[in-house]
Amino acid sequence: MEYEFNFPIQSKLKPEEYDALRKAASPRNIQKGTILQAGQSECHGLFLVRNGQLRAYTTNSEREITLYRLFEDDICLFSASCIMNNLQFDVYIEAMENTDIWVIKADVYKKLMESSVIIANYTNELMASRFSEVMWLFEQVMFHSFDKRLANFLQNEISISGSNLLTMTHEEIANHLGSAREVVTRMLKHFQTDNIVKLSRGSIEIIDTKKLDDICS
Amino acid sequence: MEYEFNFPIQSKLKPEEYDALRKAASPRNIQKGTILQAGQSECHGLFLVRNGQLRAYTTNSEREITLYRLFEDDICLFSASCIMNNLQFDVYIEAMENTDIWVIKADVYKKLMESSVIIANYTNELMASRFSEVMWLFEQVMFHSFDKRLANFLQNEISISGSNLLTMTHEEIANHLGSAREVVTRMLKHFQTDNIVKLSRGSIEIIDTKKLDDICS
Repeated sequence: MEYEFNFPIQSKLKPEEYDALRKAASPRNIQKGTILQAGQSECHGLFLVRNGQLRAYTTNSEREITLYRLFEDDICLFSASCIMNNLQFDVYIEAMENTDIWVIKADVYKKLMESSVIIANYTNELMASRFSEVMWLFEQVMFHSFDKRLANFLQNEISISGSNLLTMTHEEIANHLGSAREVVTRMLKHFQTDNIVKLSRGSIEIIDTKKLDDICS
Repeated sequence: MEYEFNFPIQSKLKPEEYDALRKAASPRNIQKGTILQAGQSECHGLFLVRNGQLRAYTTNSEREITLYRLFEDDICLFSASCIMNNLQFDVYIEAMENTDIWVIKADVYKKLMESSVIIANYTNELMASRFSEVMWLFEQVMFHSFDKRLANFLQNEISISGSNLLTMTHEEIANHLGSAREVVTRMLKHFQTDNIVKLSRGSIEIIDTKKLDDICS
């Protein structure tokens, strides 16, 4: 099956630039749970999400924390860290659902970035977006209590899934938040006592979004 | 007094680009302790450090944490966040010593970035450097214990000042590390018991750098 290749700023590109990008892009179908990248040593090329969801996270051997998530039309720069001088940190990338992506060859993108001021500045904006997301997270971790962070996470999940019934384990939530399963369980039970959530095996139903909002604010 | 204007990649620039930068740059002498910027709302222009030291930090009303420091020839992008789309976070900038900087007008730099692929990609590299520093810090905060972070900080201070006798208060150290004064004092006393440091009023002498290394590693 053939897919049309759409690049976010393609209307601003010269025809030959768009053409070079299109030729350098291969479609890939990624199974849910696949780790697309484990650290900075790999340079797969730019990932452009067609549909589905990727998450970028960092980890030591014991814990993980989600840095940001990527949805339709989002681009993952850090799968092509070799094209960027001075970008030196480990990012792991995992498919959260079955996900279709384009993989754009790193060397072609690098060349385009070095010749086109439009693509260079677009890349700059992408990096600034990710940087801002990581700074937001950093401030959350530094300055906010865990109940706020968990409430914020649940709100975000409701808006991603479009449902108040979240099917995820406490372990999975811990891995998003850089915490331990026990800590998540304890706080969720606390939320349950306050009639904010209803816990079942493998799922969490948010029954009072107003109270959840109050914790976030 | 006239100073020569040096821009890190000036040998790669066209003469008219260098000229535009030079004309857009004004020298400024900043007194130690001056807060050059408080948050993202301001857009002063790019700061290029001639000599001295700036620190970029983030804060809530109660605590501070140093994001990175800038020395000779370093450029601070976040004093000109208005030139960068999608860069949305608050950075505070403070002069740690009497510091001489050039301030390059934001609108001129923005124009150059939009016309010169060299300047656009250089800006990209600058952002990638800062991003990498913040990610390093984030991982420290997430995954490392406080004794390691404090030992690491002391090592870094030795290398910045070129001396094993550091004249700074526990409060100042806490503000670098995003911690509370009491926590710093407790850990320093612990280091003193282990004969790693010798504490006096307003100063800390590192007497066993080997043991300090051991904690860092």
